[in-house]
Amino acid sequence: MRIVGVARAGGVDVATLSEDGTQVTVLCGLEEFWAEPEGHLGQEATGERLPLGAVTLVPPVLPDARVLCIGLNYLKHVAEGSYRDQELPEHPTLFARWTRSLTVGGAEVPVPANEDGLDWEGEIVAWVGRTLVDAEPDEALAAVVGYSVFNDITARRAQKLTSQWILGKNADRSGPLGPLVPASEVGDLRNGLRVRTRVNGETVQDGSTTEMVYHVGETLAHISRTMTLRPGDLLATGTPSGVGYARTPPWLLRPGDVVEVEVDRLGVLRNPIVGSEHRRP
Amino acid sequence: MRIVGVARAGGVDVATLSEDGTQVTVLCGLEEFWAEPEGHLGQEATGERLPLGAVTLVPPVLPDARVLCIGLNYLKHVAEGSYRDQELPEHPTLFARWTRSLTVGGAEVPVPANEDGLDWEGEIVAWVGRTLVDAEPDEALAAVVGYSVFNDITARRAQKLTSQWILGKNADRSGPLGPLVPASEVGDLRNGLRVRTRVNGETVQDGSTTEMVYHVGETLAHISRTMTLRPGDLLATGTPSGVGYARTPPWLLRPGDVVEVEVDRLGVLRNPIVGSEHRRP
Repeated sequence: MRIVGVARAGGVDVATLSEDGTQVTVLCGLEEFWAEPEGHLGQEATGERLPLGAVTLVPPVLPDARVLCIGLNYLKHVAEGSYRDQELPEHPTLFARWTRSLTVGGAEVPVPANEDGLDWEGEIVAWVGRTLVDAEPDEALAAVVGYSVFNDITARRAQKLTSQWILGKNADRSGPLGPLVPASEVGDLRNGLRVRTRVNGETVQDGSTTEMVYHVGETLAHISRTMTLRPGDLLATGTPSGVGYARTPPWLLRPGDVVEVEVDRLGVLRNPIVGSEHRRP
Repeated sequence: MRIVGVARAGGVDVATLSEDGTQVTVLCGLEEFWAEPEGHLGQEATGERLPLGAVTLVPPVLPDARVLCIGLNYLKHVAEGSYRDQELPEHPTLFARWTRSLTVGGAEVPVPANEDGLDWEGEIVAWVGRTLVDAEPDEALAAVVGYSVFNDITARRAQKLTSQWILGKNADRSGPLGPLVPASEVGDLRNGLRVRTRVNGETVQDGSTTEMVYHVGETLAHISRTMTLRPGDLLATGTPSGVGYARTPPWLLRPGDVVEVEVDRLGVLRNPIVGSEHRRP
């Protein structure tokens, strides 16, 4: 089962995508879905059925959801980057995206005029399905209702201007997000899902979730001790080694390139890169 | 004129608060307001009039607005903190809050169970009123429709766990925000507004916006070169010296304390601190 968002006149509906990807069937409204996500995922979609070409897909994400991202989670990625000489902290390094930076597969991602290009970061997002306050890791992991393939596309110049990364992590349409796949069809990430990124067909990242330092349940539990997690919040779990800026010479995405992230059981997310003139809506 | 949000059954309305603070008059719905904020600020409120005791105030903020915060902006605050030995970057250090961390004056702010207390950071928020893409500083400053008094209450332990600050900046109800005051009544922050914070009546911060290193127009222009700013986005402009963690001995807010931020022309924001048992709704 793959869950997508569909833009409607009055807001956003949540729908299931057919096996062959040619049509969607409406499940319910967005707020209704996140009020009881586990219940809705257990039901068959019985709403309006529409051909994919007749709808505009959007991430099935609540506007005020929090997108929490783990910055350094795969050891080989830590070793290739700016933080390689620092001791690995006991807790995950968390940075923020706002939901407005999210988009879907197929969307054109613009390079800001002041960047030489954009960097890829293929990864997996976990969707929180229950309210979590001071949760234990097992309780937090059980609250995950689904996973999606994600590309944490990064404006490296802006990211590295100061000690804090968020400007370079929230460029326009820089966070393509695939359909939500129910957790029951994915299993525990610790069992190993392969995460691959390709640029114009060439593989640039090829890692496994078995390399993760900080796990989903522990990280959500850790977060819940400071801020209450709500259904619809997202955790981006970090990227494997192979990003562009750490290469010699550096390699960044330029207009005309196509970037793909593929994750076992979650599918392929494919986005073309365009010039800064496409930033204006 | 002071603009507030009022929680209604179907969503949030924007209203004006009367001079004596005893009643509100509805102006329009939240989305309607932010679709044309300058137009609505130029009109008199003619909607329903309600006594303050009959309504629940909320920040007049769009759920998917971005709350961009300048981390180190008043030189004496830089000098008292962990970053004092580092060179001041050319661009402002920006971190993120999600709108779910925001609340209003009067709201009880809980101390997470794993913190010794919370730290105060009295400051001013600027509200963006127009879409900004690759804007110039003058254009960006002209796009600010209003300012509010703000307390960027911080969970210091969580903030300092890793290189990235956002966990400690998004604790539950940790961002009290005062009413929006139209920019025309406030003027340019560079002319000097006094920002004071008091804990249980004792003054702990007393600064002036003339001390700011990074100005509102320049900062919004800088941001707009990476991400498109939208009406309703917020910029928190940083705090003067006098925060609690930098004191000898450190001084943090504990349950039972009352913290107040007062800014010229923007008013007073007063919040009681409560224990972690009040985190659950």
